[in-house]
Amino acid sequence: MSESRITLGIVLFPGFELLDVMGPAEMFGNLREQIDMHMVAPQAGLVESAQKTNVDAPFSFDEHPHFDWLLVPGGQGTRALVRDEGFLTGLQQLAASAQLVMSVCTGSGLLAKAGLLDGRKATSNKFSFNWATEQSDKVEWIKKARWVDDGDRVTSSGVTAGTDMALAVIEREFGKEIAEKLAVYTEYQRETDSSQDPFAEIWEERPENQ
Amino acid sequence: MSESRITLGIVLFPGFELLDVMGPAEMFGNLREQIDMHMVAPQAGLVESAQKTNVDAPFSFDEHPHFDWLLVPGGQGTRALVRDEGFLTGLQQLAASAQLVMSVCTGSGLLAKAGLLDGRKATSNKFSFNWATEQSDKVEWIKKARWVDDGDRVTSSGVTAGTDMALAVIEREFGKEIAEKLAVYTEYQRETDSSQDPFAEIWEERPENQ
Repeated sequence: MSESRITLGIVLFPGFELLDVMGPAEMFGNLREQIDMHMVAPQAGLVESAQKTNVDAPFSFDEHPHFDWLLVPGGQGTRALVRDEGFLTGLQQLAASAQLVMSVCTGSGLLAKAGLLDGRKATSNKFSFNWATEQSDKVEWIKKARWVDDGDRVTSSGVTAGTDMALAVIEREFGKEIAEKLAVYTEYQRETDSSQDPFAEIWEERPENQ
Repeated sequence: MSESRITLGIVLFPGFELLDVMGPAEMFGNLREQIDMHMVAPQAGLVESAQKTNVDAPFSFDEHPHFDWLLVPGGQGTRALVRDEGFLTGLQQLAASAQLVMSVCTGSGLLAKAGLLDGRKATSNKFSFNWATEQSDKVEWIKKARWVDDGDRVTSSGVTAGTDMALAVIEREFGKEIAEKLAVYTEYQRETDSSQDPFAEIWEERPENQ
């Protein structure tokens, strides 16, 4: 359980998936007594999502407060970033001082490529599962999972699974009562079973990588 | 069914609820062949959400493309705006030329106060239901509803119900196949029954307005 106030950094990059960020941000951002939440990007300023909406990152990879927790979203932008050494190095530096690193969707592909999931259990979204898992063979990839809690690494499946992961982390760190109250306040029917993942089978037969 | 390309304006204001906007924006924003989506606010520029994340509104109430559809979110910012004549007039002008006006959460309180739901069936979120319904007695308020489709007015319940409403509107306007594909792509377990609203009972006994 977290005793002190947490500073959370959510990583933005061009082509991030809007709801990968905003589902968790809705939950973490409403816990104003427990969490300071900030957007951070390679460069500070407006960052265009895959859905073309621009979100402000007040902090850059070079200049930001200490982040206790880090969240990395997915989105089509990840495809270029696994070949971007500067981005991967920045991610390694941010993660090195964080006590908890989370990802949503193909964000786990970025973490994997940066070596931040070596020897860990992790998942990714099912639509792009082949692409994500190809980023590293040092990860114990788990296909059928809404999210995977491996202590200081918590990775979730596609887009909306990130919101359930956020509530699970909130429950783990701040207790069940706070998580339940938050879900009811936002009128969110949460899934508390991390193995509940119907999309693993829906995408089972998809042969190509995306 | 919509035959031509749709331009959607999503209204931002200080203190808007992040996921009220971003759940629908994830869905509408991924339909790039059918929809052009833009954020619009009383003044163009960065707008701070209730969760403190800043989102860019490239368009102002005074200068924007023609919007075929309009979406109005809720959030704590609505409490001041029902007394802001300039905002309500701006909303009336935007709605006058739109063929479809949607709201999420207490956004329906704003629409009601602006007279845009007179004689219509509508809902709002349950946590703030009393506040929303007090904005107008000319609305046929429906308490137990995830969303209410009244033709060119579609209003949804709290925060995450907006995503189901967005998918229902997409199904109505572009067909079931596109809506289903989108839900699977974003790995979203949608609720297709608009009467499915457990929070109506959870908040039943809540006496005070919020």
